[in-house]
Amino acid sequence: MKLATLRNGSRDGRLVVVSRDLARAVDAAAIAPTLQAAIEHWATAEAPLAALYDALNAGRAADSFAFDAAQAMSPLPRAHQFIDASAFLNHGNIMEEAYHLTVKKTEGIPVLIQRQADDFAGPRDDYPFPDEADNADFEGEFAVITDDIPMGASAAEAQARIRLVMIMNDVSMRTHLFRELQMGFGFILAKPATVFGPVAVTPDELGEAWADGRVHLDLTVRRNGELFGHPNGREMDWSFGQMLAHIAYNRNLRAGFILGSGTVSNRAHRRVGSACLAERRAVEKIDTGESVTPFLHHGERLSFEAFGADGQSVFGAIDHRFVPCNTQR
Amino acid sequence: MKLATLRNGSRDGRLVVVSRDLARAVDAAAIAPTLQAAIEHWATAEAPLAALYDALNAGRAADSFAFDAAQAMSPLPRAHQFIDASAFLNHGNIMEEAYHLTVKKTEGIPVLIQRQADDFAGPRDDYPFPDEADNADFEGEFAVITDDIPMGASAAEAQARIRLVMIMNDVSMRTHLFRELQMGFGFILAKPATVFGPVAVTPDELGEAWADGRVHLDLTVRRNGELFGHPNGREMDWSFGQMLAHIAYNRNLRAGFILGSGTVSNRAHRRVGSACLAERRAVEKIDTGESVTPFLHHGERLSFEAFGADGQSVFGAIDHRFVPCNTQR
Repeated sequence: MKLATLRNGSRDGRLVVVSRDLARAVDAAAIAPTLQAAIEHWATAEAPLAALYDALNAGRAADSFAFDAAQAMSPLPRAHQFIDASAFLNHGNIMEEAYHLTVKKTEGIPVLIQRQADDFAGPRDDYPFPDEADNADFEGEFAVITDDIPMGASAAEAQARIRLVMIMNDVSMRTHLFRELQMGFGFILAKPATVFGPVAVTPDELGEAWADGRVHLDLTVRRNGELFGHPNGREMDWSFGQMLAHIAYNRNLRAGFILGSGTVSNRAHRRVGSACLAERRAVEKIDTGESVTPFLHHGERLSFEAFGADGQSVFGAIDHRFVPCNTQR
Repeated sequence: MKLATLRNGSRDGRLVVVSRDLARAVDAAAIAPTLQAAIEHWATAEAPLAALYDALNAGRAADSFAFDAAQAMSPLPRAHQFIDASAFLNHGNIMEEAYHLTVKKTEGIPVLIQRQADDFAGPRDDYPFPDEADNADFEGEFAVITDDIPMGASAAEAQARIRLVMIMNDVSMRTHLFRELQMGFGFILAKPATVFGPVAVTPDELGEAWADGRVHLDLTVRRNGELFGHPNGREMDWSFGQMLAHIAYNRNLRAGFILGSGTVSNRAHRRVGSACLAERRAVEKIDTGESVTPFLHHGERLSFEAFGADGQSVFGAIDHRFVPCNTQR
């Protein structure tokens, strides 16, 4: 099934069920007022939500209305925990080669970055950032939302607790990223608000594209309408379940936890392109000694979308403009 | 005023007002069901909560009952964003000297670590951790809870949005910490669930002990009942307001945001002791070449408490035992 959160003036918005073709929606408040509430009560909410989804797809849902992604917030407008992985090692390898970095990774241990979750931006909202000198970049990713996962869960147990799949833009400010990475304590200014696609879908909705705890779909990234890249999620070096088990070694993960995949990146990047500017710039540097692709200027437009085998958009599109903000420090 | 959250079977617990002497409590559900709700509606909740606090202190509150910290959850049992600082540079300097580390800090930029916020442990709950080989440690800290702070806020503006002050134990697993620090992406296994003191207090409640955006109180740490250290919060190298402004450079902070101070550490550490094992072990290593203080074993008991000028406990005590967990990976 497909779920979204529409603006209603509250911090968590209101839950709606969206039709498979993303054309129609229907209010789900009678089942759960918010997506967070649905995840917390999944055992009782799942069946009635699925029944409503079936009715909506069959044109039998009362009071359905046209779904407008411009009215959507991120499916979870805020969460209580968000970790972003860097699970496509191909991306890290390119970055390390281009910039002569050595990230001290440990064999078998995934790269995971604890992140803030209090203010996700909507998929069509203008995205303000204060200064072009911050070197604004995007990172196209897949992400999952989980139910409660107890401390010590195995990869299989954890993976069975994945409730929803999303796409996301992990907005990144590269000027701050290298400085913060070298300090060692993770990212603050390098990673402002994250943006998720308008519709979250259950894993079964992906059919064969959900396999081995990975999303086997191309993520199509456009910059100002022009195709930038379309790498596939299947090359993730750890499954979502493996990463969840690593995190749950000594902590409970609670309902509504979000885990991102890291920038989607493929070994065939010269054919399929990249999902972030930094990777393309790194490839340019490796190939010619010089990065020529510019970071984002105010006014630029980015879109992210994934299409199923039937050619239909699975999650809807993130489609937003990067704009100045009127902030004074 | 003083606020706490009591268990009621829900994830967020129920809000109560606690008397100044921590002896009595009264339900605050008629004003706000949870502390998160109170912070989100502070403009309307503050005055009636303060009136209830005055009535409770005067012995005039109907239906008051004995306050039992063993029934308390962390004041916010979960939040949407939690950052822990390392704002006492004295601590970092000792660690760097003992272990010949060089943390690549930038002049004027605070050390801040993005953290998870979905599963804070209660102040009297047994604290399970899987393996003594993880080198379990504690870090005694102060922390603040803020209201919404818009992107671009100044230090003064941000500091005026601090609503509550707490004490916390930033539980740390040292075996994982150095490895994760060297990788550069921050902490995952090094920092399992954090624990906050039972009572959160408004800054005015601290009187002269709240000055310059710092808590000028000793934090008394006991290990198995024995005094371990009592460093004072006044030596923080950045005020809470300065750190909040740094974080808010390119993000909105939303109501219920928690910022920790980092391990309280004083230049006179040889007289007042430390608030974590790692610092004492580092001092031992500097002095004698060898660390002798052991990390935590299962079964050990830790307590953290701060006392006002009148000798009364301000926040109540974190007082918990570290225990094995029955988890299988």
